Amino acid sequence: MKQVAIGIDIGGTNTIFGIVDKNGDFISRGSIKTETHPDYTIFMSTLCRSIEKLISEIEDEVEIIGIGVGAPNGNYYNGTIEFAPNLNFEGVVPIIDFIKKQFNFNVIVLTNDANAAAMGEMIYGGAKGMNDFIMITLGTGVGSGIVVNGGMVYGHDGFAGELGHVIAVPEGRICGCGRRGCLETYTSANGIKRTVFELLADRIDPSEFRNVSYNNLSSKMIDQAARRGDIIAKMAFDYTGKILGEKLADAIAHTSPEAIFLFGGLAQAGDLIFEPTKRYMEKSLLNIYKNKVKLLPSQLPPGDAAMLGASALAWKEFQS
Amino acid sequence: MKQVAIGIDIGGTNTIFGIVDKNGDFISRGSIKTETHPDYTIFMSTLCRSIEKLISEIEDEVEIIGIGVGAPNGNYYNGTIEFAPNLNFEGVVPIIDFIKKQFNFNVIVLTNDANAAAMGEMIYGGAKGMNDFIMITLGTGVGSGIVVNGGMVYGHDGFAGELGHVIAVPEGRICGCGRRGCLETYTSANGIKRTVFELLADRIDPSEFRNVSYNNLSSKMIDQAARRGDIIAKMAFDYTGKILGEKLADAIAHTSPEAIFLFGGLAQAGDLIFEPTKRYMEKSLLNIYKNKVKLLPSQLPPGDAAMLGASALAWKEFQS
Repeated sequence: MKQVAIGIDIGGTNTIFGIVDKNGDFISRGSIKTETHPDYTIFMSTLCRSIEKLISEIEDEVEIIGIGVGAPNGNYYNGTIEFAPNLNFEGVVPIIDFIKKQFNFNVIVLTNDANAAAMGEMIYGGAKGMNDFIMITLGTGVGSGIVVNGGMVYGHDGFAGELGHVIAVPEGRICGCGRRGCLETYTSANGIKRTVFELLADRIDPSEFRNVSYNNLSSKMIDQAARRGDIIAKMAFDYTGKILGEKLADAIAHTSPEAIFLFGGLAQAGDLIFEPTKRYMEKSLLNIYKNKVKLLPSQLPPGDAAMLGASALAWKEFQS
Repeated sequence: MKQVAIGIDIGGTNTIFGIVDKNGDFISRGSIKTETHPDYTIFMSTLCRSIEKLISEIEDEVEIIGIGVGAPNGNYYNGTIEFAPNLNFEGVVPIIDFIKKQFNFNVIVLTNDANAAAMGEMIYGGAKGMNDFIMITLGTGVGSGIVVNGGMVYGHDGFAGELGHVIAVPEGRICGCGRRGCLETYTSANGIKRTVFELLADRIDPSEFRNVSYNNLSSKMIDQAARRGDIIAKMAFDYTGKILGEKLADAIAHTSPEAIFLFGGLAQAGDLIFEPTKRYMEKSLLNIYKNKVKLLPSQLPPGDAAMLGASALAWKEFQS
């Protein structure tokens, strides 16, 4: 009987889930709204019923090996979502305990969405066969998953790999975390918007963004404007690559990975972001690391990476 | 028969070696000069003969499980010392191949001196039983060894864990590595001297160092002056702790260790360095990491840490 894993990606707006085979192909999938359920028990009951329904349609044809969940601030050790700023749940939410009461699989595991994406890259994507790599997710925020010696780095408390919150610019931009200068205030979708506005203020070059409000600006528009030759947009990508490249150089001095994968909205800008990031990264690296570390686009499908990764986590636990 | 390991610490001036039991106690020990042997084959022959002599005195009483070597820029995977700036050897030196021709042990391994110290802390010292910790060596330079999931982080190329060369101050002080602003230009024994000279230039406070030349100043003198109340010396320790604490906060965002151990000359300043480092580290940490990570003094004997650590590496390989 074909073995499959269930992957769940709990996001700020939607929660998506799917039944996935060993190659990362979907057998079936579904989604529910996350935000309409501020009480986690109501949300989790709805989620579990939706998954039961999905299972019931195929349970005669497959063997389900387990469930993996990816969620912001998901803690691998505790199986809890802890104080996630982008979710409505308050405090510490015991996701895994709840699922274990509903389902009887040996493997039921949780991690944060960036770690899940890293696991997906390792099991299904471009990091197959790599023992040491870093996944950087450039979305609304910046997340990361670090793999060392073939295993996920969870750290002592399950919260390792928050590269979005290393300090890129001392006393720099205010971050949602309450501090200043975090990497994600520069290299996220919001970060590049902030850079555009800083450049509009600092410089006198014409730009199509001189008629656009902050709230109306998107990173996609910056991408398109850069391709049309807008100088402010091009400078914004260069600056974003500079900050990202410099901090990747520091990250390399920690774990010396074989490759760094970029994932998420900004990564889809292709050369616009990869070229300056690689250039500044190499320029910033200590000699012993130069021209060794690959900077690669993630091979996971954009919308499904965390869900696929969550299922990959289940596969990884099942195999070990 | 009692099992013992041989530890070798190749330093810029002296190479020390010892036969060490499982508790980290020495059976016997010796040393030779490193610097008088620019040709590595002459140096290595002398070293191997010295070790043979040590072995011959006790070989009837003990079983030798292997040899561990710690050296600057020592590469675990290749068994080579590669372009070490503080050693006279040129290029890539195949240390382990040389030793394997002289000795017939199953375990003959090399790593850099900071990784060796981390291994020593794990096997004999304060990190016993810890799976995730970081060792920071505050000597002439700054080195580090990172342990994740109970294993040393060597990285893809064997060169992981160079926290002395993360950028502490963008466009900051010139480093021996050719770049600017590296952590070790601020928090090493030389770094704190540079800070004293910066403060003497910037401020008008009286200080006993106003009569001391750069070459005559030592970190030990800064320690003693701070204890006597010298305001420049006290400010220098505070600033050193600030820079170190901030970068430890970034390191924690990578691997989320249970503890960080400080080792080396500056660490022996005790509260003078630990208090500000801890204070700024906590202040700089992302919320989820606050008040969780211990900042501890190494429990290894200062002069013998890398040698003990090298023997610990042999024990670790022997057991695995």
